[in-house]
This record gives sequence, structure tokens and C-alpha cells, in this order.
Amino acid sequence: MDDAAAPPRFDILGIGNAIVDVVAPVPEAFISRHDMRKGSMTLIDAATAERIYAAMPPGQESSGGSVANTCAVAAGLGARVAYLGRVADDELGAVFRHDIAAAGVHFPTAPLVGGAPTARCLILVTPDGQRTMNTYLGACVAFGEAQVDAAAVAAAAVVYLEGYLFDEPAAQAAFRRAAALAHAAGRQVALTLSDSFCVDRHRDAFRALVAGHIDILFANEAELCSLYERNDLADAVAEVRGQVALAAVTRSEQGSLVIRGGEAVEVAAAPARVVDSTGAGDAYAAGFLAALTAGRSLAACGRLGSLAAAEVIGHYGARLQRDLRAEAAALA
Amino acid sequence: MDDAAAPPRFDILGIGNAIVDVVAPVPEAFISRHDMRKGSMTLIDAATAERIYAAMPPGQESSGGSVANTCAVAAGLGARVAYLGRVADDELGAVFRHDIAAAGVHFPTAPLVGGAPTARCLILVTPDGQRTMNTYLGACVAFGEAQVDAAAVAAAAVVYLEGYLFDEPAAQAAFRRAAALAHAAGRQVALTLSDSFCVDRHRDAFRALVAGHIDILFANEAELCSLYERNDLADAVAEVRGQVALAAVTRSEQGSLVIRGGEAVEVAAAPARVVDSTGAGDAYAAGFLAALTAGRSLAACGRLGSLAAAEVIGHYGARLQRDLRAEAAALA
Repeated sequence: MDDAAAPPRFDILGIGNAIVDVVAPVPEAFISRHDMRKGSMTLIDAATAERIYAAMPPGQESSGGSVANTCAVAAGLGARVAYLGRVADDELGAVFRHDIAAAGVHFPTAPLVGGAPTARCLILVTPDGQRTMNTYLGACVAFGEAQVDAAAVAAAAVVYLEGYLFDEPAAQAAFRRAAALAHAAGRQVALTLSDSFCVDRHRDAFRALVAGHIDILFANEAELCSLYERNDLADAVAEVRGQVALAAVTRSEQGSLVIRGGEAVEVAAAPARVVDSTGAGDAYAAGFLAALTAGRSLAACGRLGSLAAAEVIGHYGARLQRDLRAEAAALA
Repeated sequence: MDDAAAPPRFDILGIGNAIVDVVAPVPEAFISRHDMRKGSMTLIDAATAERIYAAMPPGQESSGGSVANTCAVAAGLGARVAYLGRVADDELGAVFRHDIAAAGVHFPTAPLVGGAPTARCLILVTPDGQRTMNTYLGACVAFGEAQVDAAAVAAAAVVYLEGYLFDEPAAQAAFRRAAALAHAAGRQVALTLSDSFCVDRHRDAFRALVAGHIDILFANEAELCSLYERNDLADAVAEVRGQVALAAVTRSEQGSLVIRGGEAVEVAAAPARVVDSTGAGDAYAAGFLAALTAGRSLAACGRLGSLAAAEVIGHYGARLQRDLRAEAAALA
């Protein structure tokens, strides 16, 4: 039997860090006082997590994780979605599991028992709506090749991988295995670069992965420029054209640029009042992949990405609070 | 030494159920499908909590508890505040402890170790902004007389008690002890009736408490009418006049009515866009008590109550997301 010919049971299978977000508004001074790099994601150990949490204002907890957010939003737009990631057998793990299942996402990964607690990301939102993230990975570091559910990977039209996983060697290996399994089943492999500092930390490994294994690349301007060490977006775009079949480059309020071979489609941002930019890129990828796997045009993929991003930046939290199905259908 | 003559270290000491809220938007049909009484608070057991949670959409977790919300908001308005309530020694208990401390509230109660988990309230918000609450009390039931910190009670100008505590016999006893200690120290005792169904469940006990021990009563129209079994607010107000020195009756978008002896002050609601009415009454009590303990006029107390309520109903969650100190100062 030719697996590639089997119709996929899932439109999207995401693999990422399973994290509970703790979001709180802070003044600008909080970021400088704690020597944080504004707008970046920093990995922290358990002791640092304790220290920052103690200094933070009261927070709101909600399930997060970049690719998990994408999966939840895509399911909310009507896509069939599965997710692989590791939580612990604890209260925050139960919160994560509830939320992703309630969003309609299939989540088969067994929890880690007797190890580190569920990961948390302390997200500090400054008055300009920017997020500065401090992630304690906890149970996420126990995600490896053994957690790559081969049947689920083979059953998904697109496997979508989180760049942040490159911060853990076991997860990098899981990543490569997922890509190989997907291609063997005739599926496509997508990647989000996640964060320009993450690209800095792992540039060579990312370049090799993109060149050798990735069909669809998501990045913002800074991430793409960092990947190819270019100052100018046009130069970075010229580099990526030959590397992947399809690339979507997000540009905040300037919308996005979709590249496929010699083709380039410019997509406007949807109007939005920025309350908290957490999850904008994740939601864009959700809309884009939901439309792509439904066979829509590149312009329609970009527009659905913009619509989903506009919804999530209008409130705290990175997942949909409003049903967008009617608006999504109107766009198509 | 005359304790009554000692200046209070705290303006407000709250005693209540220490709860983490799990808030999610639901359609109207969810409420009827689960046989819930819309707008009420229902006590549920652990198994029912599991069942409702499994059926709920993804939620946002934040610290709650009616009087704990009041304490956090009052501290945010500049009052000196302490809180007594019981959480467990678990992840949600750590969240509760962090959030109330980060709000600037002194929280000396030791956590429960090896018993029930931290309480949670599953709050379902319908499109009209109404909340339907399902509370699993967990560790809260381990709050009794032993948890009443006598020094803290004697050190607070006003002890503020949560009506919901009347659902647990141990807490009722704690309640009476706190009132007795406060009066012995020359302090005032305030009570919120919490919920008209709670008043229904414990009407006689509430009437005896109000008549014998309460100086300041907070209630909404439905709660006050239920307490005195009157259909007309004017009749219920006539009843309460002789019972307490001061009563503040909240009337949603019609503002509030403040009663002191023969005096009655009508206070307008502050303009607000209702996103989630959770915590409106709690925030009103916070503003009112913060102004009262700062020596403001009754009208100023009501206006600060209205301002705080308007802020919290404009977003999900029952605590301030915006610094109101400048606006509060302008009102005074």
C-alpha cells in the first residue's frame, strides 16, 4: 500500500513545547530592572523561574506553547488537528491537556510521571503590547524520538515543527525523525523559526534543516534575516526562494509576504487594536495552514492568517476567544 | 492597654474562600444542557468538577474568591490589606499565594498539606456577560477558628467577611470568632451576602449574624430582598436600616444606594462596556471600603466602588488590569 495515497486523517500535526503561560502586564522598568531582552524568549532554570515569578504582578494562566497555540487556533478555524508535546502529570499539565482537547485537538502524548513539572512561560507584557518571555522547560525536555507518534505523523497532510524545540538535543532528534517519517508518507513538513535569538543560537542546524527537510517555512522578518545573516529582507527572501517550496514571512502591521518559486503575494494585515501581541505569529500560521490544507489560494491563506492574528492580539492570551468560522468562510 | 486606641496596621482584613477561577466563554446552550442555574454559584463535588471541566472550552486561570478579589482590588487602590483563607500546598495554591501577595496583600494563612487540593471555581460566561459559577471548595473547607489570626484581626480597621463561608460549618464558626475579636478590639465588621441563593440556603443564620454582629453590609438588590423576604427593594431597605450602621446596595447599571441611619445616598454606575461581570460586586466593595477607611464621604465611597467595578467588568478576570490610583485620587 502506498501511504502517500491514503487520505490524511489530520490536516495538521504540530510538534512543540507544551507550556502553560503566565501573563502579566508590567511597566517598561520591570524589563530593564531584571536585565531581560525585551521582545525575546529566554530559557530559564527552575530557580530563575521562582525569582522572576516572585517579582511579577498577579498573572493569568492559560495554555500556551507556540505550535500548540497554532494547533488550537487552526482547530478553531475548522481544521483537523493533532499535537505532540510533553506535559507532566500535575495540575498545570491537566490544564494544558484540558485546553488543547477542548479546542478540538487530538493530543496523544503520555504525560511525564515523576520528573520535572509542566513547563511554564512567564510572559511580561509592556504597555506597547510587546511580550518578553521567560521559559522554564520542565517536562518538555523529556520529549524525544520515542514521543514521535509515527501513525499520527503519517496521517497528517502537514507536520508543523516548532523552532524552539532546537534548544533541546533530544527534541532536535525527534524533529528529524518526524520530518523523515512525514516525507516517507508523502506528507509535507512545515517549520516556524520561532524567534530570532533562537535562530542565532542554532543557525547552522536550522539552515541544514531548512535546506534538507522543510517544505513550508514560517518566519518573521527578523528571523528570516537572521537565518541568512542578511540586513535586507529582499536579500533574505532571495535566499529562501531556492530552499523551500513555500515561505510565509510575517511583517507585523505591514502584513505578510508569501513566496512560492518565482511568485510573491503581498497580504495586508487585518485591522486590530493591539492589547497583547502574544501568539500573533502562531495564529497567522494557523490561519495559513488551515486555508492551505483546505486547498485555498496563497492570497486566501495569507488573509486567513491575518484574520486569526488580528483576533488573538486584541486580548490577553494566544488562542481564539471569538468564533471566526463565519468570517473565515467569507474570506475563502 | 486599650486595643481600640491602637492605630490599625491594616485598613481591611478579608476572610474568605481562597479559590482559583477557571473562566471560559460558553454559548447559552451550555448552561441549559448542564442544568445550571444561570447567574448563580453552585457548590460541586470533585467528580462534578471533573465532569464540567471536561465539557468546558479552554479556560483562563486566575486567582479568585469573592473577598480575595476585594482585597486585591483594594490594595491596588492604595489600601493596606490583609487576607485569611486556605489553599493547598499545590500548584494552584502557589498561583493563588503569588497573585494575592503580588497585589500587595498580606496573606499569613498556612497552606493545607496532604488534604484536598486548592479550590477552583469553574466560571462560565455567556454572551450577555453573565457568569454562572461552579465551585469545588477543596482545601477551603479546612478553614476554621484555628485559622483566624487574632493579631491580624485586631490590627485591621474593618474585618470583611464573605457570605459564601456560611456554606461550611467550620467557616461559620471562624466567622463568628473573627467578628467577636474585631469588636473586642474596637474595630468594625463588614459582610457581603455574596449570592441570593447563598442567602436562601442560610437565611436565618445570616439574619442573626447581621442583626448581632455586622456594622457594614454589602448586598445587591436580589440578596437584600432575599434576606428579608421582600419583593420590593424599598421594603428591604427599610428593614436593613435598623439592623446595621451602614449598608451599600449595588444595583448593576443603576449604580448603588448607600444607607446610613436615615440618610440615603444614590450613586451612579461608572460607564463600562461589559465583557465579563465576574467580580463587579467584589470590586465595588473594594473601592467603597478603601474610601471609607480613608475617611471619605459616603458619596465618594460609592463613586470609588463604581469606578473599580467598571474597570473589572471591562475584561475577563475579577482583579484590576489597570492602575486606578490617579483616577481614584481625582474622585476624592
